Amino acid sequence: MNTTELYQQYKEQTQKAADLQYASAVLGWDQEVYMPQKGFGARGRQLATLATLAHEMVTSGTYGDLLRELSQRNDLNDEQQNNIRLSLEDYEKNAKLPTEFVDKITQQTSASYDAWLRARKENDYSIYAPELEKMIALKKQQAELYGYKEHPYDALLDEYEKGATVSLLDGVFEKVKAELPGLLKKIANAPQVDASFFHQEFLKDAQWNFSLDVLRQMGYDFEAGRQDISEHPFTTSFAATDVRVTTRVNEQDYTSLLWSSIHEGGHALYEQGLPESQYGLPLGAAASLAVHESQSRLWENCVGRSLDFWTFFYPKLKTYFPQQLEKTSVQDFYKGMNQVKSSLIRTEADEITYHFHVLIRYEIEKALIGGTLSPKDLKETWNDYYEKYLGVRPNDDKHGVLQDVHWCHGSFGYFPTYSLGSFYAAQYFGQAANVIPSLHEEIKNGVTGNLLHWLRENIHQYGRRYTSEELCKKVTGKGLDFSVFMNYLQQKYSGIYAIG
Amino acid sequence: MNTTELYQQYKEQTQKAADLQYASAVLGWDQEVYMPQKGFGARGRQLATLATLAHEMVTSGTYGDLLRELSQRNDLNDEQQNNIRLSLEDYEKNAKLPTEFVDKITQQTSASYDAWLRARKENDYSIYAPELEKMIALKKQQAELYGYKEHPYDALLDEYEKGATVSLLDGVFEKVKAELPGLLKKIANAPQVDASFFHQEFLKDAQWNFSLDVLRQMGYDFEAGRQDISEHPFTTSFAATDVRVTTRVNEQDYTSLLWSSIHEGGHALYEQGLPESQYGLPLGAAASLAVHESQSRLWENCVGRSLDFWTFFYPKLKTYFPQQLEKTSVQDFYKGMNQVKSSLIRTEADEITYHFHVLIRYEIEKALIGGTLSPKDLKETWNDYYEKYLGVRPNDDKHGVLQDVHWCHGSFGYFPTYSLGSFYAAQYFGQAANVIPSLHEEIKNGVTGNLLHWLRENIHQYGRRYTSEELCKKVTGKGLDFSVFMNYLQQKYSGIYAIG
Repeated sequence: MNTTELYQQYKEQTQKAADLQYASAVLGWDQEVYMPQKGFGARGRQLATLATLAHEMVTSGTYGDLLRELSQRNDLNDEQQNNIRLSLEDYEKNAKLPTEFVDKITQQTSASYDAWLRARKENDYSIYAPELEKMIALKKQQAELYGYKEHPYDALLDEYEKGATVSLLDGVFEKVKAELPGLLKKIANAPQVDASFFHQEFLKDAQWNFSLDVLRQMGYDFEAGRQDISEHPFTTSFAATDVRVTTRVNEQDYTSLLWSSIHEGGHALYEQGLPESQYGLPLGAAASLAVHESQSRLWENCVGRSLDFWTFFYPKLKTYFPQQLEKTSVQDFYKGMNQVKSSLIRTEADEITYHFHVLIRYEIEKALIGGTLSPKDLKETWNDYYEKYLGVRPNDDKHGVLQDVHWCHGSFGYFPTYSLGSFYAAQYFGQAANVIPSLHEEIKNGVTGNLLHWLRENIHQYGRRYTSEELCKKVTGKGLDFSVFMNYLQQKYSGIYAIG
Repeated sequence: MNTTELYQQYKEQTQKAADLQYASAVLGWDQEVYMPQKGFGARGRQLATLATLAHEMVTSGTYGDLLRELSQRNDLNDEQQNNIRLSLEDYEKNAKLPTEFVDKITQQTSASYDAWLRARKENDYSIYAPELEKMIALKKQQAELYGYKEHPYDALLDEYEKGATVSLLDGVFEKVKAELPGLLKKIANAPQVDASFFHQEFLKDAQWNFSLDVLRQMGYDFEAGRQDISEHPFTTSFAATDVRVTTRVNEQDYTSLLWSSIHEGGHALYEQGLPESQYGLPLGAAASLAVHESQSRLWENCVGRSLDFWTFFYPKLKTYFPQQLEKTSVQDFYKGMNQVKSSLIRTEADEITYHFHVLIRYEIEKALIGGTLSPKDLKETWNDYYEKYLGVRPNDDKHGVLQDVHWCHGSFGYFPTYSLGSFYAAQYFGQAANVIPSLHEEIKNGVTGNLLHWLRENIHQYGRRYTSEELCKKVTGKGLDFSVFMNYLQQKYSGIYAIG
């Protein structure tokens, strides 16, 4: 068969599996957003069937043969070569996991999630610990099945962030530990900023409508997406032409909705910017979790928590909440949203302390998978780490070790991408500002079209063609560089906290 | 392999196909209710993939072998026997259609729908006619593939209503033609009722909230369903534990929302009442379209357009719309909602003239499939029939031959089930009133729990075990009996129009 026909076969089979995965995503979205309570049982089996079928398609022997055959052809064009290279990589990784093992993990996920929900309800880690222990045993096994050079955790990290390893991340987090505390100390010693105005009555509809205004202005295409309410904000994609975000509203706390909207909006702009022609193929998918997070953090933090951005938006926000914000200047509003304060909950942390939350999870995962920490000692270790790094100690498990859902899903190796994403975000935003000299002026005028265009051209259009590091080098001339993030923080917070 | 194991295999395979069909239903619901505009393309291919996979599963040779093998076993219990009997029937019917033919119909559906939308926009039937012609050619071919005894249309009717034939329906519609005009004439000569109060400003939220009150009171389980807005109201099921309804709101016309809510609520009560343990199997599915329609019409017309029902609900409705309904008594409200008036649009027709709309479509389908009417003459024929049977002639195609979507989908044989459903509804409601002597009193007090219980026990719980006719005989002691419907109308309208 000639290469064109063979490639067409590959494309059809891969996109068919993607159809099932996207269909799962629709069912998952509905489950979080609109599904009635009693729908859970049937939905669970429908999702399992879709997942099994999609998995069968992309792990079948004939699919593997097709990929291997195509990878030998020398008349593929560049785009085809990249898709085949990446699909073959995925295939070989998937092929290392026997079906029975995948089934076991799936069942354990369900059991873990159940136990975690019960444990949260009872505020008692010990209910969850036995299931976590079983999950960790499986993840260790998975690491062995994948194989690794230095540390078993490397094998798991690689699943979320290709090329990430313990030795690389140890280096990154060493810098976090070395450089952030100094800045935090300076901030702690400076006059504090006031954020109490965020805690007034902010009516839901007005919050909602303003968040739609902001998403629209950012360039989020509402003809190719929508925003809804869910318990935990998330972004999901059913194609580049249908990318949805969710948010949550708290009428007594204005910080809850807006930045989660902007954050998810950043993720969604990335998904909407992936090439439509590559639907379901590697070049139509996001580069990595860290790159995904770089997009959400760039919009949330570099743009959405900047004075430039609010120079344009604050007068508009005041038309929604004239009384609540009557006595708050745009400067005070900006300072308040950037208040730095150690806290127990990762998702509520500021841009600086956030990375200690991630660091703690990273250290714990490394130790759990490396076998130097037992799940039964986890709670104490967690609490000790919070005291050591953030100076706060959880009083209960819900505000401590039970706060994240990730481990229930078997997602060990996911957390570090949150920090990597922030660091890349600072580098990308810095580079954009170099290339677009009027960027800050534009943002002051509510114009982010050039920024989005630059992200589309330099990041979004490539899909998975480059790894995070390759992409960062291509775009900024260097790989991950913590110093750029550090400079960004120094500059931002010296303005906010009047420190030297 | 022993029968238990073999049956377990059957169950797994059948339910897996059902998982895909229900997943399609979720995607379809989302498409009608929440999907953004640009999502159509990708959604189309996702739905096609799901449909193809489900079709492959239930038409595969091994599945057929399994069914045939099981149908020979004599140690199946009653429930198992019925499932195997019905699945084998489905299998044999499906097996008559070659895959290429199914693909052709699917493509033609898409082309027809496109053309129909354009034709409606331009209000010009001629844009749609060529595609309809192609669809009819395919449907004739389908009838030949299925095979039939007397009339090719029989083969298509059977798909929607097992056992329905031209000779049977000719008999039914003869009665419609013979008996309804007399009643209509009496009504036309009586003093007319006023329905103008329905056309005031009725705020959306209040209409919406009242419809939720009504659905709740009917026994619709909101933990196993929800109501949303769509252009055309519909009911869809993803399992008996997740059955959703949609409705539409017109602030200038109160009749638009409420009865469509009750109608869809009737469909949904049926789906919620199907046995959960039979998920995805024939005994977990509705008996037929006519039985489905009997449930929606029973609630919409026999209950929802009765004076008993409004004796309870009208005071509640008045709390939502005190000004609009200030001068309207419950009797006048009841009369207004039952106004009889010839009209052009089927979905807006009253309980009597409705059946002429169906009759017209039945006559036309029979002639199109029988080859005695050509699509190019369809518009004239349609308009002539409307003049003949309803005394009104469409001025344009949107209010005439382009009003229904059914033919785009290739649904020839569907319309008659609407009338059959109404006739069965009168029989079932009459039987319920016989068995529950206090039924009318109960409804006057807003109590429909006993009615629902009776429907659950006598109709819902059986799934597809009985055909419409078998079920009707079992429940009422007789098969379809137009005279019961006729008596119901006589009694109802003699009260409303003060005729003898």
